[in-house]
Amino acid sequence: MVVLAVHGGAGGDGPWRGMTDADPQRIACMAALLEELGERLNNGDLDALEAVTLAVEAMENEPLFNAGRGSVLDENGNVGMDASIMRGVDKAAGSVIGLTTTRHPVRAAQHLLLQGWPVMLAGPSGDDFGKRHHVEQMEPSWFETELRKAQWEKWKAQRLRPGATDEEDALLDHDGEQDGWGTVGAVALDARGQVAAATSTGGMTGKPVGRVGDTAIIGAGTWADQTIAVSCTGVGEAFIRTVAAHSMAVHHRTEGLEKAALKVLEEVGPLGGRGGLIAVNTDGEVVMPFQTMLMYRGVYADGTCQVGIGPDLIQS
Amino acid sequence: MVVLAVHGGAGGDGPWRGMTDADPQRIACMAALLEELGERLNNGDLDALEAVTLAVEAMENEPLFNAGRGSVLDENGNVGMDASIMRGVDKAAGSVIGLTTTRHPVRAAQHLLLQGWPVMLAGPSGDDFGKRHHVEQMEPSWFETELRKAQWEKWKAQRLRPGATDEEDALLDHDGEQDGWGTVGAVALDARGQVAAATSTGGMTGKPVGRVGDTAIIGAGTWADQTIAVSCTGVGEAFIRTVAAHSMAVHHRTEGLEKAALKVLEEVGPLGGRGGLIAVNTDGEVVMPFQTMLMYRGVYADGTCQVGIGPDLIQS
Repeated sequence: MVVLAVHGGAGGDGPWRGMTDADPQRIACMAALLEELGERLNNGDLDALEAVTLAVEAMENEPLFNAGRGSVLDENGNVGMDASIMRGVDKAAGSVIGLTTTRHPVRAAQHLLLQGWPVMLAGPSGDDFGKRHHVEQMEPSWFETELRKAQWEKWKAQRLRPGATDEEDALLDHDGEQDGWGTVGAVALDARGQVAAATSTGGMTGKPVGRVGDTAIIGAGTWADQTIAVSCTGVGEAFIRTVAAHSMAVHHRTEGLEKAALKVLEEVGPLGGRGGLIAVNTDGEVVMPFQTMLMYRGVYADGTCQVGIGPDLIQS
Repeated sequence: MVVLAVHGGAGGDGPWRGMTDADPQRIACMAALLEELGERLNNGDLDALEAVTLAVEAMENEPLFNAGRGSVLDENGNVGMDASIMRGVDKAAGSVIGLTTTRHPVRAAQHLLLQGWPVMLAGPSGDDFGKRHHVEQMEPSWFETELRKAQWEKWKAQRLRPGATDEEDALLDHDGEQDGWGTVGAVALDARGQVAAATSTGGMTGKPVGRVGDTAIIGAGTWADQTIAVSCTGVGEAFIRTVAAHSMAVHHRTEGLEKAALKVLEEVGPLGGRGGLIAVNTDGEVVMPFQTMLMYRGVYADGTCQVGIGPDLIQS
């Protein structure tokens, strides 16, 4: 059997309040890519590595997710994108930090993985590397959408307002539309029984220039080994400090997928972490837990697609 | 009991060939800092976090180690320094990537840890952050020593020589003087029974601009939790792909310190990793294994200092 699971970020507190006007577009993006890529995985046309790359590229293309075009804006109003990818069978990995012109950061990360060395590139070098490997380059302004500019303006106004000292509050948009969630990721099990994982993000609105979250960090936001592939999303610092994706793999060895995932979320919680993860193992089992109000997510398995945002998955 | 252990990098193949002319100075640096800081740890004047910070600062000050002043030069002949630090009791962490003007990268990382958020800063932001926190700033040229310039010239000549395609060969200096090893790190157990770890590096001679090795990565080069602190050194990419420092903590839970350390080195080996690590647990046990020709290292425990380079430790 083959599996492809994706997430489009986790966030929010309290009970699920139902879809926003923008959510059907996010759902449609996930459903379409799962259907197309799931089928190709099933046919053996795609291996796990290329499947997660294409899945993340499709979400980088969707401006309502916080990755690629539509990434949120940093404290200076600019885009800076991180991505990482890992192949389970040989633990090959690639990671890029702070890209500003590469249309598909996950593709640049995949080229690093395939090249073999180095694993990580930060700053303009990552864009230069992408360019040398024919990953499409765009003007920085191409990534900036009206929605993200509006969210940034609001962030800036709130930040400057006296008393707006609670960083997290200031970063949340209380009108219900997510802002700065929307990190995207994918995990896959291919027809040869091998797994891979990839994650891509614009970070969080108003983030300090140069801040690196868990998305770019092998072991924190992304992990794959010979038995499991994991992609995380949430308040990145807690995922770094618990090496969350690797911790998932470690717990999985002794406790199975469900319990392992809950343990990871229990570990990040006390460090201020709120978020979720998706994981698939080589038995074809999948989990997609989250401790936030919602997590955009979907899965293709056994020829069937399911997608969801709140507690329930629906067949697409 | 209190413990302070340090390393000054691992490297080389084959049997130990004895000290180079420069080694007594490295030994003297480690012996002096172990004696001074070990005593202060013993007296309760220092906690583990400040002890590892001061230990790494002392090695950043020694130009014969590859961190701070005396860092090796990248492909363009410039210095770019990475460091990270972690406190076990609360898993607080800080990391800086690609610094060019901060005299003590580990101190900037400690300020990030103490501030709490974000955990990681890459690029000029890291230097700016250091500056705002009164970490001494220097001209980039201040970090460049004659030795490192000579090593860089040699690297460049070898790289440009037709047939010099084996990257690793080109990076090694076959005259016996180490080149591009010398990442420094420290782990400590303080009088309150708490541990911390820190690591700092200039990377490797001729590294691509923007390349990030394991030193900056929490879980790869540096890890500390409630029972163990770990600092790694070696071919960084393999340590990233195995999340080596975290893996050490995981194996330690079930297998004890000695066996856990050997397992980690066995994991990095097949991925091209050669190196070593130092670790201390809250029982006061210490290991300092390496799979290379040498690892500069030293330990203060029970009021006694021991230092070494090759297979044997000597009392200092």
